[in-house]
Amino acid sequence: MDYVYGPGRNHLFVPGPVNIPEPVIRAMNRNNEDYRSPAVPALTKTLLEDVKKIFKTTTATPFLIPTTGTGAWESALTNTLSPGDRIVSFLIGQFSLLWIDQQQRLGFNVDVVESEWGQGANLDILASKLAADTAHTIKAVCIVHNETATGVTNNLAKVRRILDDYSHPALFLVDGVSSICALDFRPKALEATKTAKSVRVFFDWNDYLKFYKLGTYWPYTPSIQLLYGLRTALDLIFEEGLDNVIARHSRLGKATRLAVEAWGLKNCTQKEEWFSDTVTAVVVPPYIDSSEIVRRGWKRYNLSLGLGLNKVAGKVFRIGHLGNLNEHRNYSSQETIVSSVAESDFDLYMYFQLQLLGCLAGVEMILKDVGYPVKLGSGVAAACAYLQNNTPLIPSRI
Amino acid sequence: MDYVYGPGRNHLFVPGPVNIPEPVIRAMNRNNEDYRSPAVPALTKTLLEDVKKIFKTTTATPFLIPTTGTGAWESALTNTLSPGDRIVSFLIGQFSLLWIDQQQRLGFNVDVVESEWGQGANLDILASKLAADTAHTIKAVCIVHNETATGVTNNLAKVRRILDDYSHPALFLVDGVSSICALDFRPKALEATKTAKSVRVFFDWNDYLKFYKLGTYWPYTPSIQLLYGLRTALDLIFEEGLDNVIARHSRLGKATRLAVEAWGLKNCTQKEEWFSDTVTAVVVPPYIDSSEIVRRGWKRYNLSLGLGLNKVAGKVFRIGHLGNLNEHRNYSSQETIVSSVAESDFDLYMYFQLQLLGCLAGVEMILKDVGYPVKLGSGVAAACAYLQNNTPLIPSRI
Amino acid sequence: MDYVYGPGRNHLFVPGPVNIPEPVIRAMNRNNEDYRSPAVPALTKTLLEDVKKIFKTTTATPFLIPTTGTGAWESALTNTLSPGDRIVSFLIGQFSLLWIDQQQRLGFNVDVVESEWGQGANLDILASKLAADTAHTIKAVCIVHNETATGVTNNLAKVRRILDDYSHPALFLVDGVSSICALDFRPKALEATKTAKSVRVFFDWNDYLKFYKLGTYWPYTPSIQLLYGLRTALDLIFEEGLDNVIARHSRLGKATRLAVEAWGLKNCTQKEEWFSDTVTAVVVPPYIDSSEIVRRGWKRYNLSLGLGLNKVAGKVFRIGHLGNLNEHRNYSSQETIVSSVAESDFDLYMYFQLQLLGCLAGVEMILKDVGYPVKLGSGVAAACAYLQNNTPLIPSRI
Amino acid sequence: MDYVYGPGRNHLFVPGPVNIPEPVIRAMNRNNEDYRSPAVPALTKTLLEDVKKIFKTTTATPFLIPTTGTGAWESALTNTLSPGDRIVSFLIGQFSLLWIDQQQRLGFNVDVVESEWGQGANLDILASKLAADTAHTIKAVCIVHNETATGVTNNLAKVRRILDDYSHPALFLVDGVSSICALDFRPKALEATKTAKSVRVFFDWNDYLKFYKLGTYWPYTPSIQLLYGLRTALDLIFEEGLDNVIARHSRLGKATRLAVEAWGLKNCTQKEEWFSDTVTAVVVPPYIDSSEIVRRGWKRYNLSLGLGLNKVAGKVFRIGHLGNLNEHRNYSSQETIVSSVAESDFDLYMYFQLQLLGCLAGVEMILKDVGYPVKLGSGVAAACAYLQNNTPLIPSRI
Repeated sequence: MDYVYGPGRNHLFVPGPVNIPEPVIRAMNRNNEDYRSPAVPALTKTLLEDVKKIFKTTTATPFLIPTTGTGAWESALTNTLSPGDRIVSFLIGQFSLLWIDQQQRLGFNVDVVESEWGQGANLDILASKLAADTAHTIKAVCIVHNETATGVTNNLAKVRRILDDYSHPALFLVDGVSSICALDFRPKALEATKTAKSVRVFFDWNDYLKFYKLGTYWPYTPSIQLLYGLRTALDLIFEEGLDNVIARHSRLGKATRLAVEAWGLKNCTQKEEWFSDTVTAVVVPPYIDSSEIVRRGWKRYNLSLGLGLNKVAGKVFRIGHLGNLNEHRNYSSQETIVSSVAESDFDLYMYFQLQLLGCLAGVEMILKDVGYPVKLGSGVAAACAYLQNNTPLIPSRI
Repeated sequence: MDYVYGPGRNHLFVPGPVNIPEPVIRAMNRNNEDYRSPAVPALTKTLLEDVKKIFKTTTATPFLIPTTGTGAWESALTNTLSPGDRIVSFLIGQFSLLWIDQQQRLGFNVDVVESEWGQGANLDILASKLAADTAHTIKAVCIVHNETATGVTNNLAKVRRILDDYSHPALFLVDGVSSICALDFRPKALEATKTAKSVRVFFDWNDYLKFYKLGTYWPYTPSIQLLYGLRTALDLIFEEGLDNVIARHSRLGKATRLAVEAWGLKNCTQKEEWFSDTVTAVVVPPYIDSSEIVRRGWKRYNLSLGLGLNKVAGKVFRIGHLGNLNEHRNYSSQETIVSSVAESDFDLYMYFQLQLLGCLAGVEMILKDVGYPVKLGSGVAAACAYLQNNTPLIPSRI
Repeated sequence: MDYVYGPGRNHLFVPGPVNIPEPVIRAMNRNNEDYRSPAVPALTKTLLEDVKKIFKTTTATPFLIPTTGTGAWESALTNTLSPGDRIVSFLIGQFSLLWIDQQQRLGFNVDVVESEWGQGANLDILASKLAADTAHTIKAVCIVHNETATGVTNNLAKVRRILDDYSHPALFLVDGVSSICALDFRPKALEATKTAKSVRVFFDWNDYLKFYKLGTYWPYTPSIQLLYGLRTALDLIFEEGLDNVIARHSRLGKATRLAVEAWGLKNCTQKEEWFSDTVTAVVVPPYIDSSEIVRRGWKRYNLSLGLGLNKVAGKVFRIGHLGNLNEHRNYSSQETIVSSVAESDFDLYMYFQLQLLGCLAGVEMILKDVGYPVKLGSGVAAACAYLQNNTPLIPSRI
Repeated sequence: MDYVYGPGRNHLFVPGPVNIPEPVIRAMNRNNEDYRSPAVPALTKTLLEDVKKIFKTTTATPFLIPTTGTGAWESALTNTLSPGDRIVSFLIGQFSLLWIDQQQRLGFNVDVVESEWGQGANLDILASKLAADTAHTIKAVCIVHNETATGVTNNLAKVRRILDDYSHPALFLVDGVSSICALDFRPKALEATKTAKSVRVFFDWNDYLKFYKLGTYWPYTPSIQLLYGLRTALDLIFEEGLDNVIARHSRLGKATRLAVEAWGLKNCTQKEEWFSDTVTAVVVPPYIDSSEIVRRGWKRYNLSLGLGLNKVAGKVFRIGHLGNLNEHRNYSSQETIVSSVAESDFDLYMYFQLQLLGCLAGVEMILKDVGYPVKLGSGVAAACAYLQNNTPLIPSRI
């Protein structure tokens, strides 16, 4: 019934795919519906309205596209740019690398700004490029908000400010797959679709906009199950409160980093300003192969951790501490055109401290397994000390 | 809990999205998994092998792409053709129209062969075009196997034979979304990807092939739920027997057409050779608006029928008698490169006679509601007379 | 995956277990919860309140007991009566027979009032017994509201009236498993528990009442899944409107009986006043074995019909046209003590006409299979003629 | 959607209801079936055969009764004993107390052997009672195998040996609800049903035996969903291997006790020989109310722990480390008549170490919350040190 049987629950701590809340699984447990009946548009309408709240915007136009994050990237690029357009793109890890690869294969003239893996985007270089670009040849600035390969979160508000400082009209395209961000962004993207010459059909926003006007919303068949799943995911977020969700993840990120420190290991992310609250990449000593850590997690503790990728393969393993919103993976809301007045970046994934503490205990046992002289309980203790002082009561249960 | 509440079960008889078998719903009722663990590739390997059996091929390379049928179309075209390439494409209804629109927007030089709606592809014109094309400027012949707008099924074996008669090297691209076809096809499509200059990244088969070689199978995150759903759908088909499934649908198509005849109504499909076993488009008398029939089904009987589209809007309504494989909607197997030794076209969707008979009874009541002088029970009787003589016992229950 | 594989959907038309609505299946799709947390009592409280609405009472005390209907019978008897107590009980079919068997084995002195199978309870005999019982030795009158073996529904209001006419204090105990009834009943049952000497522990209402007072509601562990299922079933009923549900079933019962008449077959129920709106028992000609009809339904059409039982074995088959509230099977609401001001009896099971029409078409094919000269379509036509004139629009979709 | 909303996953660590494995939830996600069709008996047959394997017997007759553990108790007693029969019963905690209450209310002459809460059954007293009972007036010895109120597991093999030493014919009735035990027991229980005069109908095994003979298995309607859930639970146990399941639980029990010790707290269970591998009752210092610990778990960490009950209310809290077989709650296999050649007692519930470690970390934070000077991480460290040395690789993943 499972393809490589393991007893009990799999402990899923990769930075994606993430754990799905039981109510969302329940909501997706249904037969199909006719998407041309009055029911599906009525549902879709609520989704589009509520997704905007997640992006803290009231005016933007969201798109729910039946594809993966990779497809969402392509959608954002081809709908706003033309082949040959110059774009600035930051290379800081595996996922930004893959996005840049896509940008180049789609025919854009990509100005790559590379950082050492473990660092955030180099915004000084961005500033000097914008300063030099008085002719406004730069059509877009592309950034991965949360680089899960290295656990680095970039400061989007700062990027926005730099663009504004130079009054530069470049589009600001953000990959928020593992974060979902809100940023101060003027809604120019829809304008850009009118002139964008990139070839696209499946991903063409104009087809969506046409059906938005008709009130039937879908140019082609959506997954009914995912629509209901998204409905429930949004309900869960609103029930907890978006700000509470964010605050909770901030706690979980902090707790994980305290554990890593207690283990005497280094965070792949080099500076605090870039620490990600949804994933932590942990650097192992040179005498340990981090892949072995991931393998043992799977083989002995039914624990799924993230591998080190590409440049940091064998050198880091990753603990995902995000989750519960995975249906966004397929319905990547096009953050590039969702503008918002919110200044600060944040994430909204949910996670649960006791599951995380179980994962941290598991990592400690694995570290011991592979010969690292960890003091058992040390990371859990550090995380608990912080969480015990900072976890509020659950409002509905007071 | 449902967006436009209706009491009881919705009777879903549109030609897509289709009813999902309960075991498939059950299989999709699960949390995520790490798609980079050994488990997901092990599962994927069985899927790729077994999907080939559905296409009656042992040598072809299937692709399971997380997208809709529209994305699958784009995948087939961009991976095998270059902008400016001349292609022959048959326009016989709304879905072939949409595919041709995509072909044109993707920059191909489309030689449209139009038929009256209700007729199949004009293969005489194809023959003369191929005869004249001694220079082999035609790079592909594109056909919708089963045009759900008009209930027309094209004869793929005949197309294949014509291509062979002229020894023409054009690729033969088939939309099998509502049929899944088997056709005699030499696997040239993969070869074509090497020279195809169409811009594509998300849909690029080369990325898939790279991960096939690595044994990890996925260039980006698949939907774990749909993989398990597909696994169960394949198991169900093999349990019943592919040929039994086909035979059963042939019976259901025939039964539906007999009902239409008994009602004194005309089939939109003009000749028997084009009759579809998965959908029947019924022509209503001029004094009736077919949209009203669909509306009343929804409002009074919780019955979902298909609207007439575009040229036949208001003139036909459609009864879908396919189902139970809807996960193929998102994982469109790239029929263009799946070759098979099977000569005849067939479909493999499952449906169930008593549900269909309930639908036919519902249509009769609606017809009466809208003023058509139908003899109640007449269609059901005609369908039953045929089915009662032609339904075999269920082998596992004898 | 299924134990005797059949392709496609099973068409479940036995008078129980019944079809479960998809939203109820969805609601039961969950992990356990601690039933001593504040959450489960909060849920239970809403259930107890809302179950009363189904019985159209505001003052009665309902019990949700984790058992089957047979257990509910035992609960009603042992909580209100003492061994040796004289009770009057009506034998009109298999289920009343089984209840009487239980009554006798529990040590009561049962005064059996037998009718021919196919007839309702003989209330004249009840009247004369009550008239003669000036000493009030009769402690209870027991009746199966809806005898599913013969499709007979007894008139509860009339029984109540007779009891009142004689000012007789006997308890009035009703089996409403396949009906759920409302009756004019003064709440004496709870009083009776104080003196009832029948041995019972698991079924003892006093344990329930003790936990009701504590606000924790459960003397032992309930099934969390069924509680949530019941919650959703109640929501569905209230969304449609209890009176609409009843009216709809009246239509379905009537439609089925019209079909039986059109087939030229007899209803096992001998008079119109006893016709059940949830099940119809159909008498077959002497040269046909009704069991063969049920067997062929299973083997050829994946249709589950009810067998003839005991005295009518081989002579009748049964069509259940109730459904969608099966969770009541395990949580038998103790109708004996749920009083109500409603005068008329009614049922509240939901069913769906197009499913029923499919079933009727299936029965026609089976009848032909077994050599009965049915005119195909005749029953469906008769049912449709009635339904087409009597089905209202779905209010939420107008 | 949940009745007292809490963000994220509820961490369920009460000793029942227990966590249900995801595949079991999936298996129960289904519509009803006709239990009189050939399919349900075919399924039931496999269940009865396989349940015997869990009890390590090949010859005994198991019963699957749609009730709770309380009902199963009643079933075991009333089917084997007559009112007035003398029985010996051990009182060692809340659940044995409740069973004794039931025994007394059912009219048996109960010889209660009481121990201090936290101690096991006093077998010396049993021995002397049996020695004195040369007339064999004792008809049964009743014992709760695993008393979840105090975390005490009794040694069943020893009881069996004492009975044998005195060649005493008393029945040996065991409550295995939270353990499921195997014991060396001659199958005399079925014999006893022939003479047992206790009044029972719903619980009467004779009705079951009658339907076993007919091959239809069910005297009344079972829950189809639970049958499929049990099927999958059995499959999971056999896939892991019953002995592996037992060994794993032994590890989890040991790990939990090591944590309790590291916290400087006492186990309610007074001697090692009685330690339960499925639940640990932890004694708190007098200045702490253990109910407050349970409340804070719920309110702050979404952690469900077990309250102290009755005599130990406020003094202990309980950590359940069993799970995943909860469908046995409703289908209490009648261990009294299931004989086995196995000598040792064992449990077969599954649990997962990382979840348990998360729970232990949660308990540490709560202890700190309520003012107990716990060293954070200490319990987790002790548990990890043991588990890291004793957890085998998962065989299917090596």
